Amino acid sequence: MKHQELIFSNNVAEEIDIIAQKEGAPQVFVLVDVNTDRCVLPVLKKSSKTIAGAKVITIKSGDVNKNLESLAFIWEQLCNNGATRKSLLINIGGGVITDIGAFAGATFKRGIRFINVPTTLLSAVDAAVGGKTGINFNGFKNEVGVFCEAEAVIISTAFLKTLPTEELFSGYAEMLKHGLIAGRDVYNKLLDYDISKSENGDQLLELLEESVKVKKNIVEEDPTEKGIRRALNLGHTAGHAFESLALRREDPIPHGYAVAWGLVVELVLSHTQLGFPSADLQQLASYIYSKYGAFEITCNDYPALLDFMHHDKKNDSNEINFTLLKEVGDVHIDCHCSEEEIKSALDIFRDLLHI
Amino acid sequence: MKHQELIFSNNVAEEIDIIAQKEGAPQVFVLVDVNTDRCVLPVLKKSSKTIAGAKVITIKSGDVNKNLESLAFIWEQLCNNGATRKSLLINIGGGVITDIGAFAGATFKRGIRFINVPTTLLSAVDAAVGGKTGINFNGFKNEVGVFCEAEAVIISTAFLKTLPTEELFSGYAEMLKHGLIAGRDVYNKLLDYDISKSENGDQLLELLEESVKVKKNIVEEDPTEKGIRRALNLGHTAGHAFESLALRREDPIPHGYAVAWGLVVELVLSHTQLGFPSADLQQLASYIYSKYGAFEITCNDYPALLDFMHHDKKNDSNEINFTLLKEVGDVHIDCHCSEEEIKSALDIFRDLLHI
Repeated sequence: MKHQELIFSNNVAEEIDIIAQKEGAPQVFVLVDVNTDRCVLPVLKKSSKTIAGAKVITIKSGDVNKNLESLAFIWEQLCNNGATRKSLLINIGGGVITDIGAFAGATFKRGIRFINVPTTLLSAVDAAVGGKTGINFNGFKNEVGVFCEAEAVIISTAFLKTLPTEELFSGYAEMLKHGLIAGRDVYNKLLDYDISKSENGDQLLELLEESVKVKKNIVEEDPTEKGIRRALNLGHTAGHAFESLALRREDPIPHGYAVAWGLVVELVLSHTQLGFPSADLQQLASYIYSKYGAFEITCNDYPALLDFMHHDKKNDSNEINFTLLKEVGDVHIDCHCSEEEIKSALDIFRDLLHI
Repeated sequence: MKHQELIFSNNVAEEIDIIAQKEGAPQVFVLVDVNTDRCVLPVLKKSSKTIAGAKVITIKSGDVNKNLESLAFIWEQLCNNGATRKSLLINIGGGVITDIGAFAGATFKRGIRFINVPTTLLSAVDAAVGGKTGINFNGFKNEVGVFCEAEAVIISTAFLKTLPTEELFSGYAEMLKHGLIAGRDVYNKLLDYDISKSENGDQLLELLEESVKVKKNIVEEDPTEKGIRRALNLGHTAGHAFESLALRREDPIPHGYAVAWGLVVELVLSHTQLGFPSADLQQLASYIYSKYGAFEITCNDYPALLDFMHHDKKNDSNEINFTLLKEVGDVHIDCHCSEEEIKSALDIFRDLLHI
């Protein structure tokens, strides 16, 4: 897999023009959803001649639209507007846009070049980097896709002020995860910073750069997730199950919130399986509870949650696979837990979050 | 891109079992169309325990079904039958099956392992080898897909006797193309062999092995078609245009026939642009006419044909891009021809094929 260029800058329009000129694409396409079309594109159009001259493709917003229908619409728009193998696609938006746009780019005419411009904290710290592309399918998240990195990703905090606090918290959960993987230095800085009062975009951009580099280093070592990349799945086996359950309830939750609650479940398992320190577990649980509240589950939800976990892409067949921590910064991949152990962890999770 | 293993053998069942054991997949899925389900699968089920124990996914046959609907059906079947990232998909069939099956495999859960078992001469010599996967979309052939090689391809002549002569001719056109690219030695052997009387499967398997290796060597040098791989597009710019025109007429032609006629057009262009010897052009044209007949076009079809050529994936933007020959074995990629030059070549094509 080719290496993508990571650009940390709040001069987004300028960076887009530099990249477009370097790539020398005969046609440029921009993918946005209705939100970035309204809130982000007008600003960029004024200051970037690449964006001003591009053909814009707009899809509906939200994870429910990260589906085959939207993908087919993007392919169709590229096709009908004369995109060739040398065209450049610029995906501007949150994780939905960077995931589906990257998949569309990776597959149109067997692959055209694309760049990602994440506009949410979550997509900046997670979705836009690392080459995981895809769509939801048949009721499962990211069920089809490919590994394919963007030519470049422009990471900024320029657009975050347009976002509700909930969106910031959602992205911050992934940063916390990177902190837990990286070690106490990174982790403690994140616990100290107050994302809800993030007036200072530059300080956040620094934390973001540190966090993205945790991911970048792991992805470079294992781009197609054969081994150590699974470290990044910390919080996600349980998190995805919460997300799928919420979707089934027709009451979706933000991905980062699911990860935040998933981190609590998986640190409980880390404690019971690997002796992860109780004090650290308590600290994280109370941090998550204070910022993210709780995800309401009862023991009646356990069978569905286990079922979703069984369906996770990381599983080999019958066993449920977790990434766990022995302590902050000490990651163990491929930890198998039994259904009973997971149920007990869910009990403790409910205690910790006062459910 | 990983390298695929090419196995030339008429003991197909045995080879499948060897590979499946080596890959050690917890579940095996087999993709067939209704024809291979009826003609090929019963035989393989009896002699291969891998096939006997696999979950079979059957789609409709024919290039018109190499579409998004069939692809979604395959994904759905994999999903609903518990396929994991460690599952193995075995694509058994012609080019439609190996193209769409490989694309499904390359994208399901961001990629599972798959092997190709081509059952037609065309897919053995062309489609199953080289990592081009995809589906037709929005009226264009192979408009979406990825480059992704199979773990292994089992090439045999074991199933060819179930095919009509037309199918053999279709595949043989791609072998002729490989001969034209490789040089006089390979080319002359192919002109001498009579595919319509191919009683001797072993002699054909030898020719096939030689031909596939021409392709293999080129693909290994340039897997994602940035340069020399375009040599393999000889005959295909005009050929795809014929194929698309036939599709629009709702009277589809076999891919190999389109390539055969496309070779004539492109050797005419090779003659007018690069001085390809007239005698070789005449010889090929009369060979093609005697075996493949002619594709009926009038000058009223020229605008549509040029339009299809403009849409070819190999084009940068406005120019039409050909692979041409200075002589047999001397390939020139990225030759641009004007619309007038192409129209003249189509005039000569019609003369040569008595249209």
